[in-house]
Order: sequence, then structure tokens, then C-alpha cells
Amino acid sequence: MKRITFLSDFGTKEGYVAQMKGVVCSITDARIIDITHEISPHNVREGAFILWTTAPFFPLGTIHVAIVDPGVGTERKGLIITTKKQILVGPDNGLLLPTAHLLGDFVVYEITNPKYMIHPLSRTFHGRDIFAPVAAYIARGVPFDEIGTQTTHFVDLQFPLGEHHGDRIVGKVLYVDRFGNLMTNIPQEILPGDIEQKNISMVSGDHRWEQVPFVSSYGFVQQGALLLTIGSSHFLEISVNQGNAAQLLGIGVDADVQFLFS
Amino acid sequence: MKRITFLSDFGTKEGYVAQMKGVVCSITDARIIDITHEISPHNVREGAFILWTTAPFFPLGTIHVAIVDPGVGTERKGLIITTKKQILVGPDNGLLLPTAHLLGDFVVYEITNPKYMIHPLSRTFHGRDIFAPVAAYIARGVPFDEIGTQTTHFVDLQFPLGEHHGDRIVGKVLYVDRFGNLMTNIPQEILPGDIEQKNISMVSGDHRWEQVPFVSSYGFVQQGALLLTIGSSHFLEISVNQGNAAQLLGIGVDADVQFLFS
Amino acid sequence: MKRITFLSDFGTKEGYVAQMKGVVCSITDARIIDITHEISPHNVREGAFILWTTAPFFPLGTIHVAIVDPGVGTERKGLIITTKKQILVGPDNGLLLPTAHLLGDFVVYEITNPKYMIHPLSRTFHGRDIFAPVAAYIARGVPFDEIGTQTTHFVDLQFPLGEHHGDRIVGKVLYVDRFGNLMTNIPQEILPGDIEQKNISMVSGDHRWEQVPFVSSYGFVQQGALLLTIGSSHFLEISVNQGNAAQLLGIGVDADVQFLFS
Repeated sequence: MKRITFLSDFGTKEGYVAQMKGVVCSITDARIIDITHEISPHNVREGAFILWTTAPFFPLGTIHVAIVDPGVGTERKGLIITTKKQILVGPDNGLLLPTAHLLGDFVVYEITNPKYMIHPLSRTFHGRDIFAPVAAYIARGVPFDEIGTQTTHFVDLQFPLGEHHGDRIVGKVLYVDRFGNLMTNIPQEILPGDIEQKNISMVSGDHRWEQVPFVSSYGFVQQGALLLTIGSSHFLEISVNQGNAAQLLGIGVDADVQFLFS
Repeated sequence: MKRITFLSDFGTKEGYVAQMKGVVCSITDARIIDITHEISPHNVREGAFILWTTAPFFPLGTIHVAIVDPGVGTERKGLIITTKKQILVGPDNGLLLPTAHLLGDFVVYEITNPKYMIHPLSRTFHGRDIFAPVAAYIARGVPFDEIGTQTTHFVDLQFPLGEHHGDRIVGKVLYVDRFGNLMTNIPQEILPGDIEQKNISMVSGDHRWEQVPFVSSYGFVQQGALLLTIGSSHFLEISVNQGNAAQLLGIGVDADVQFLFS
Repeated sequence: MKRITFLSDFGTKEGYVAQMKGVVCSITDARIIDITHEISPHNVREGAFILWTTAPFFPLGTIHVAIVDPGVGTERKGLIITTKKQILVGPDNGLLLPTAHLLGDFVVYEITNPKYMIHPLSRTFHGRDIFAPVAAYIARGVPFDEIGTQTTHFVDLQFPLGEHHGDRIVGKVLYVDRFGNLMTNIPQEILPGDIEQKNISMVSGDHRWEQVPFVSSYGFVQQGALLLTIGSSHFLEISVNQGNAAQLLGIGVDADVQFLFS
């Protein structure tokens, strides 16, 4: 069974997402699964982050359609990216690229064949008129080079990872989730092996927090207490047990964070 | 494969939508697709608009269940509407009618046979107890005249289209989407063929905007700039590139808008 | 066809829900249906209420995965609960228990076999790494006692029902829905048989409302008027026709309510 996922900033109030699904199920019986449609409007980076952390959990051959597309209708290209494991479809603005790098061995095609688009082609909704039908035709087995042409010109995007600077680990907040958890770009592997025994200080901007406990899950500190843990994507996460770390600390996406261990 | 869509004002927080899906999948293996459950509470007109712009993208034979139903449990009827292409199920309050007119050759049945309802029948949730099982039995092939009786009495609703008044085109805002785009009822066909060369003035209430550019997509004006374009439903749309036109102009649903071309 | 439902407090903005679905569809082709992901963060009781009112509408053999899990990663157990009709999977914090009692003849298993978990196992997201794959393996026919071990130790939860106290019926508000309808715990069966002919007074805290009409649906009183009716789960419901009863009365979840009939 083929699977097509959708990620967008369209919201679910309007009929936009359903129009894309109607197009897909007019072409193929592939199963449709939503990743999210609540990406902040026009926030390509946020969409890229969610796709990057989610795609790896899907089976081999899944086709991911991602649309956060402020440049729709201009000269920006539409892309198919094949990787070792899955296929990505969406606009050429970086949205697909962190996931392409992660999945590996990727090849980029520019979508060019109008035969696989919906007509009349709107200028403002390529999600429905280009990306959804292209994904559906891929699910039906149409070859990539029949739909587009291979290209090495595309907008790249990669998420930098946190790293050691002297006695510190320096990183950034990549994402704040619904619970106010601050997901950093610091991978579990670069943290001290005995981190649970360390005295940890955290610095962001002019603020410094001392003796922040590192625990293996939220419930190991008191309700309302600040903590560090390894989030579900295996990055260092700043959280408050049953509370909102972003609000408590006044920190958001892109904030610089530093950690000292003694 | 049969397909059943759902549109409602139930939201997705409660179990209402899932209860309807549970009923459907107890009766049939038809695929279930959500159009939206975020219609403003009790706003029949808004629900009718979303169904009207979305249904045409679904394949032949799709069964659309739409429920925005302030009159639930009173004497208002429940309807099945068959059209040339698809089937509509929902309350008799106009919600289904713009779509019925659009899909064409429609016949209306009043749902009457209690055999195809869930018992005990609630008085407040006909979506679950009448419309969902009726759609599921239609998907299983039960004939319309076994479930209901043909009728010519129903609440009608049609969306008026914008038109020429002397040197002006006069219309209304039918919908404001998540991005603040104002969708008018002015179809692409009645606009001047050389509109991109015209000097366009826009009037709404006491306000007048001069030299509003018509472009083929948002990205062709500067960020934050007002523009006119053809929306994805092929109507004239008032937008701001990466901004919110409804907020910028102080205009909402049902606002009168006029355009002068020179 | 097997069916797996999901209920959580994860919201739909992030990729969490999609990660769980990716895990499930990597293991089984069972159909996936969302109940809701909008449970208030960490509100086990609210999640338990929604599952309790929704599960009965799903077919025999449905597997419900419910995750509202403030204790994730601590020593709290993960459970499979088999009942006469359906199967429940989730954390051991009471979330599944009202539904288990309702579906009847239930047996509780503690999830113990790491073979049916995703590795590396995160400490903060057992929904994806334990509950989703366990549900998927159950759908594939893996026996319960291969995945876990039977236990009689678990956190219990039941919703108390309203009852007669002298000349009054005394109950509580169990839930406030999107429309502001107040759902009480007073079942239809204990109300006076001739309730529509009664003069009803309602008391909550220091407030008393006289002559509250009992009607069979919202539309039988004027717009904006207070009413009592039987909600879709067959409990007494306090509502306002096309308005918000919770706001009008200043009453919320857990409020005590009393009714006098004369």
C-alpha cells in the first residue's frame, strides 16, 4: 500500500487541505496521512523542522507532500526529491532539504510536465494543482523523469547542530512545542556521559540559571520546576514539569543557549 | 472504493466527529475524509461556501456529509441530494444547496426511514444518529428511495455573483481565509481581459484605494503590499503579500466591494 | 479490517501525532482514526471523559490508543486493557478505566516486552515508542500475554453519576463542550418521566435559576434562552440556544448542580 503525507500552513478550517485530498483520491487509492497543517503561515523553517523530525518514522516509499510556499505563482520551481528511503514533493524554498539530507542519497527533479498538473492551473494554489497530483501520479508509478527533469540547482537548507566551545556547549532553540518545551539543536551524543551527576548552569542572553537538573523525564522533578531532558527527537530539551518553559524563561525560537557543566 | 467526507462546526476537540466516524466504520469500509470541522458555530452560510468550493475536487460518487445544524431536533428535515456527480447528505437549511446547484441535475430526498438511523435516536446529534449512518448505507448501496422520499420542498440557497454596474464591477466578500485573503464573488470571466494593464480603484464603504495592482500571484508585489489576484477558486481575491488583507483594510465577510478600471 | 484510534493531548501542530501514525503504518495496514488530539494538556480526567463517551460507537475489535501522560518516563506502567468489545492501550493513570468499566469484562495487562517497542526508546514519548507499536502489533494478531503480563494493580477511575437527594437531583458538570454546553453526570433514566410538564429550578453555588425549560432540542426555545435537554450521550445537559451556557451562567467543569422539580 502506498502512503502520501501532507504538511502545510493551510490550517484545517478552509477547504484547501480537502481539495488536495480530493485531487489525490481522484488519481490513486494511496492512503493519505496528515503530518500537520498548522505550520505558522509562511514559516518555511518551521515546516522544514517538523518534516525533518517526523519523516524518519514513516515506512520506506512514503511520499511526503510539504507546502509552505510564500513564493507560489512566481518563478520558484516545484521539486520532487528522491532519497534512499522516501520521496519528497514541494516548493523549491528549502522546505524539503533538511529532510533530504537526513534521508540521504538524494536526487532533485524540477517538476515540468503539465500533463501531471490540474488545469486550469491556479497561480495561488500549487499544493492542489501541482504537488498533490504529482504525488498521486508518483504513487501510481509514473517515473520521476517523466514528471520532471533532474536538476542540481535548488535552495538548500540545513539545521546547524550545537557544539562545544571551550568548556561550554553552545546551541540554539530550534522549536517551541505546544507544551512550551524548548527543543535545542544539541544532540544527545555531545552531552557529557555523566550529565546526571553534573552541576549544570544555563545561559541565554543576559540571564543565567544555576543548578538546572538533568533528568530522564519530566516527572522526576516537582510540578512547575525547570529541568533538562532528552526530547523525543533525541536532542537536549528545556522543559518545566507540567508547565511552560518558554513562558517561564521568556525564551523562544532561535534563542542562543549555552550550558556549563561542573 | 467509496468515499465519505465530513464537514461540520463540531470542532475536533470533542469526540463528536469520531463518534460519527465510529458509526460509519461500523457499517461500511468506505474511506472517510474530513473537509473541515472548524466552521464557525451555527454558520450555515460559511459551511455552504466551503462545501461549494471543495466538493468539485472529489471523484465521482463521493458522498459528502455536511452538518451545520442550529435547528437539530426541531421539525427541520434531513436531506439526501443526488446530483450528476456526487451525493450530499445533511440538514434542510440551505447548507447543501449551493453545491447541489453547482454539481447539477439534482434530486432531493427527505430522510424518513428509521431503519437507517441509530437508536436510541438523540435529539441533539443527528450528525451521528442520522446523517452518518445514512451516508454509510448509501455507500453500501442502499437505494435512495429506500432511505427517504423524493421531495420538492427544501430550503434553497445560492451565492449571488458579482456583476457589472455601469463602469464598475460590484460584488461582495464571500469569505475571509486564515491568511486574511478576501475572496469575492466576482468570477474571473467578467474581469477585463487586459486587467493587468488597467489602473484599478477599489471602493468599500467610505474607503477608496487607488492603483491597486492586479498580479498573477502574491509574490509579484512587495511584502506587505496590497494586491488583487485570481484566487484558487477562480474568483477575484483581495490580498496582501505575506500579510493580512482583512486586517489591513478593515473589511470582512459580506462587505460590498466595487472596482473601477481605467 | 482492523481499526486503531488515537486520543491525546498532543495537539496537531507538531509532528507527534504523525510520528505515531508513521510507526503504526510501518507495522500494519490497520485503518487509523483520530478521536481527538486537543485534550487540555495533562488533563487525564478530560481525556478519560472523551474516550468514555466515544469508544462505544466504534465497532467490535477496535483498538483505542489514548495518551494523556504527565508521568511519562517515570515508573508508571503502560497498559493493555482487553474488554468484551474493544481493546484499550495507554498509560496507567486512570485514563482508560472509565471506558474499561463501561465496555465490561475487562482484563489488564502491563506492557513489558521490549520487542514490541521502538528503539532507541525515548523517555518522553511513549505514545510513539510503546503505545503506538503495541497497538499495531495487537492489530497484527500478537497475543496480549506475549506483549505484557496480566496484572490486578492499576490506577482506577470511574465517573460518579448524579442521584436523588430528597426532593432534588444532585450532580456535577462533567464537561463543557465547544459550544458552551454543560454536560452533567445526571443520566436520562433518573429524571422525572413527565419532566417536560415540570417547573424546574436549578441551583449552582449561590445562584438559583427558576423556570428553566426542559425541551427535546435547542431550537425549541428562543435564541439566547437557557434550556435543559438530553445531550447526545443521554445525560442531562444545560444549554443556551445558539449561545454559550458556560459563559452565561459562569459555570464550568466540576461545578455542583442541583435540580428541583415541582
